[in-house]
Amino acid sequence: MRVSRRGAVDPFIVMDVMEQARALEAAGRSIIHMEVGQPGTAAPAGARAALAQAMETGPLGYTVALGLPELRAGIAGLYRRWYGIDLDPARVVVTAGSSAAFLLAFSALFDAGERVALGEPGYPSYRQILRALSLEPVGIPTAEANRLQPVPADLEGVPDLAGLIVASPGNPSGTMLSREALSALINYAQARDIAFISDEIYHGLDYGTPAVSALEISDDVYVVNSFSKYFSMTGWRLGWLVVPEAHVRLIERLAANMFICPPHASQIAALAALDCQQELDANRAIYAENRRLVLEGLPKAGFTKFAPPDGAFYVYADVSDLTDDSLAFAAEILREAGVAVTPGLDFDPVRGARTLRFSYARATEDIVEGLRRLCDFMARRRRPVSEPPAGIFGPE
Amino acid sequence: MRVSRRGAVDPFIVMDVMEQARALEAAGRSIIHMEVGQPGTAAPAGARAALAQAMETGPLGYTVALGLPELRAGIAGLYRRWYGIDLDPARVVVTAGSSAAFLLAFSALFDAGERVALGEPGYPSYRQILRALSLEPVGIPTAEANRLQPVPADLEGVPDLAGLIVASPGNPSGTMLSREALSALINYAQARDIAFISDEIYHGLDYGTPAVSALEISDDVYVVNSFSKYFSMTGWRLGWLVVPEAHVRLIERLAANMFICPPHASQIAALAALDCQQELDANRAIYAENRRLVLEGLPKAGFTKFAPPDGAFYVYADVSDLTDDSLAFAAEILREAGVAVTPGLDFDPVRGARTLRFSYARATEDIVEGLRRLCDFMARRRRPVSEPPAGIFGPE
Repeated sequence: MRVSRRGAVDPFIVMDVMEQARALEAAGRSIIHMEVGQPGTAAPAGARAALAQAMETGPLGYTVALGLPELRAGIAGLYRRWYGIDLDPARVVVTAGSSAAFLLAFSALFDAGERVALGEPGYPSYRQILRALSLEPVGIPTAEANRLQPVPADLEGVPDLAGLIVASPGNPSGTMLSREALSALINYAQARDIAFISDEIYHGLDYGTPAVSALEISDDVYVVNSFSKYFSMTGWRLGWLVVPEAHVRLIERLAANMFICPPHASQIAALAALDCQQELDANRAIYAENRRLVLEGLPKAGFTKFAPPDGAFYVYADVSDLTDDSLAFAAEILREAGVAVTPGLDFDPVRGARTLRFSYARATEDIVEGLRRLCDFMARRRRPVSEPPAGIFGPE
Repeated sequence: MRVSRRGAVDPFIVMDVMEQARALEAAGRSIIHMEVGQPGTAAPAGARAALAQAMETGPLGYTVALGLPELRAGIAGLYRRWYGIDLDPARVVVTAGSSAAFLLAFSALFDAGERVALGEPGYPSYRQILRALSLEPVGIPTAEANRLQPVPADLEGVPDLAGLIVASPGNPSGTMLSREALSALINYAQARDIAFISDEIYHGLDYGTPAVSALEISDDVYVVNSFSKYFSMTGWRLGWLVVPEAHVRLIERLAANMFICPPHASQIAALAALDCQQELDANRAIYAENRRLVLEGLPKAGFTKFAPPDGAFYVYADVSDLTDDSLAFAAEILREAGVAVTPGLDFDPVRGARTLRFSYARATEDIVEGLRRLCDFMARRRRPVSEPPAGIFGPE
C-alpha cells in the first residue's frame, strides 16, 4: 500500500541504546538508566486516590473537548502560584499530553509548507511532528555563549519563518532563558508575525532562579505544559496549552475533532495532583540532590564541559575531547560501564555527534552507582590495560 | 496572532442542541438524551479493578510507543474470537482513541493536498481531521438503496483519490456492509492504489448478522477500532489500528513522535476489559432491547423512514415529510418534547437538513420515556391546538 512522504520521519537514535540496554538486562547485566526522560516516581498518592474513588462513582465518559472546567480553573490557579499572574481559565486547553498540545498548536497556526524555527540542540519530536504535518522544521544552531538557547541574532537572515519554538528549561540542555532573553525573542517574533510557542514542560523543576513563563511577558503566545515531569505523570498523557483569547474557539473546534477530549481518568488524577505540592516538592528535592551529585561526579569522571543545568533533570555534556561519534561512545559506555546515556544526535543532527545527555531523573542510589561506574570506566579508558604477560592463558 | 487556513474546521452543529439542552436542564427541565454517541455505562468492573491495583504497584510511566505487548496480543486474540482470523500482534498499534488512530493513518498514508473519499452521511470528524492535516475530504453521497453505504459505482468518475474511508456499522446510519459489498470496495480501491481505511469502532454492537472486518478480506488495509463503544470506555481514549506488516515501523516512528505512547492507565484497564465479556454482553443485550423499543416506537410517533439499523446504537431517520430544517426541528423537539436528538447536518451537509439521528445508547427506562415524549409531541404537532376561545386571558 502507498505511504506518504511526510510520514517518513526519522527514528529516535536513542532507541538503539535502549534496545541494547534491554538486551543486556535480559542477559542478566545490571544497567543504570541515565538515558530516561521521565521520573521514576508514580503519580502523587492523592491523584491515585482521587481516581480510585471516581472510577467507582461515575462512568468517566467523554468530557468536553477543552477539559474539565475545574481542571482548567486549577491550572489557571497554578499560574498565580508559580508566576503571580492572573490567567483566564477559558484560555487553558487540557490536552492528551504536550504531544497533543503541539499537534493542536501547529494545526491552528501553520499551513502546509510553512517554516518553523527551533533551537538546536532541542527535543527531537518538534522536528518530526512538524514534518508529519507537512511543515518545514528550520534548525537554528545555538551558541554555548547563549546557554544553548536561540537569540534574535540567530534568526536574522533566516527567511520566511511562520513560527518559533523555544523551551526553557531546555531538553537536552537544562538551560533556561532569563526574562530578558525570553522577552527579546518574543518581541522579535511578534514584530515579524512569527507565532511564538513556548514549551514549558519542565517548569517546576528548577533549582535556583525560577523559570519564567512566556505568559509573564505577553498574552499573544502559545504556551505548552504538561503533568508529566514536575507532577510525575508521564504515562497519564495529560498536558495543557494556553492560547490567546481570540484562538480559544478555533482550538476547541480542532480539539473536538482531532481528539474528542483528553483522557477523563487522567484529568481526574491531574486535578488532585494540583493539590499534592508536598509530595511533588519532595520529588524535586531528590532531583536537586541528584543534580548536586552529578555536577560533582561528572567532572571527576572526566566529563568537564557542560551547559549550565538550570532546570529539568538533564546535563548535556560536550564530549568532543573524547569522541566524534556519540552513538558509538554511548554504546561503549553501556557495554563497558553498564550505564545507559543518550547520544546527542537526536537533539542536534550535527554537533550532537560530540555530545551526550545524562539524565538524573531516577533514584539517588542509582545516580550514585551510575557516577561510580562512569568514574571507573573513564579511569580504565584513560589508562588502557597493558598486554597481559605472555603465557598466562597459553599452554604450559 | 496568525492562524492557519487548515485550522478553520467546522463547528459541530449538534453542539447548539447540547448547549440548549444544558440550559434547559439548568433551568430545571427534564431532558431525555437521545443525541449522545456514547454508552451510559462505565468501563467494566474488571477493568477498573485492574487499574486500581496497578496504580498501587508501579509508576505507570511511558509505555513503548505501540502499546503494551500483552495488550497488542490480547487485541490480536479478539480477531480470532470475533472473526476467526489469525492476526500477528506486531501489526496491532494501540492508540489514544480512534482519534489518534486516524491522525496516524492519515499522516502515514497521505501528503498535503491529496484527496480522500468518505461516504455521506458519515462521522463528521473524518472531514475535519483531514482538513486539519491539509488533506481534501471528498464527500460521496450514498444511496438509500445501498443502505447509505458507498459502492464502487459511486466512486467512478471521482478523480484523483488517494484514500477511501468506510465505516460498518456506520455512524449515523447504523447500517453495515455485507462481505460482498465490503470486498467490492476493497477491490476497487486496491486496483487503483487508493488506500482503504475501515472504521470498525462499532464492531461488537451488532444485532443479527455479525459485522465483517476488512481484515477478513485483505491484509492490505488500515483498520481502526476502539475500546469506546462495545467495551464502554469512551473517556479512556483508547483505540487501535491494524496496519499492513510493511507499515509497522513507519507507524511506530510516527506514533513515538506524535504521541509518545497511549495512556498507560487506559491500557491497563483495556487489557482487563478484554476478559469482561459477560458484563459487556449484558450491556449489548440492553442496546438490543432499546433497539427493539425504538424500532417499534419511532414509527408509532410518526418517524417511519429510516435506514436498516444493523448495528451501533443509532437510528437515522428521513424526516423530509416533516421538515427541511433539521436543526430547527431538533430545537423544536428539545423545547416541546424535552428530548435531545441530533440534526443530520453534521453527518451530511446537504441531505442532513432533512434527517435526524436518534441514539439508543442510554438506559432502557430513558428510551421508554423518550419514545413516550416523542409520541405525545408528534401527536400534538399533527393536531395543532385550536385557537383558544377569545377572551379567556383577555379583559373580562
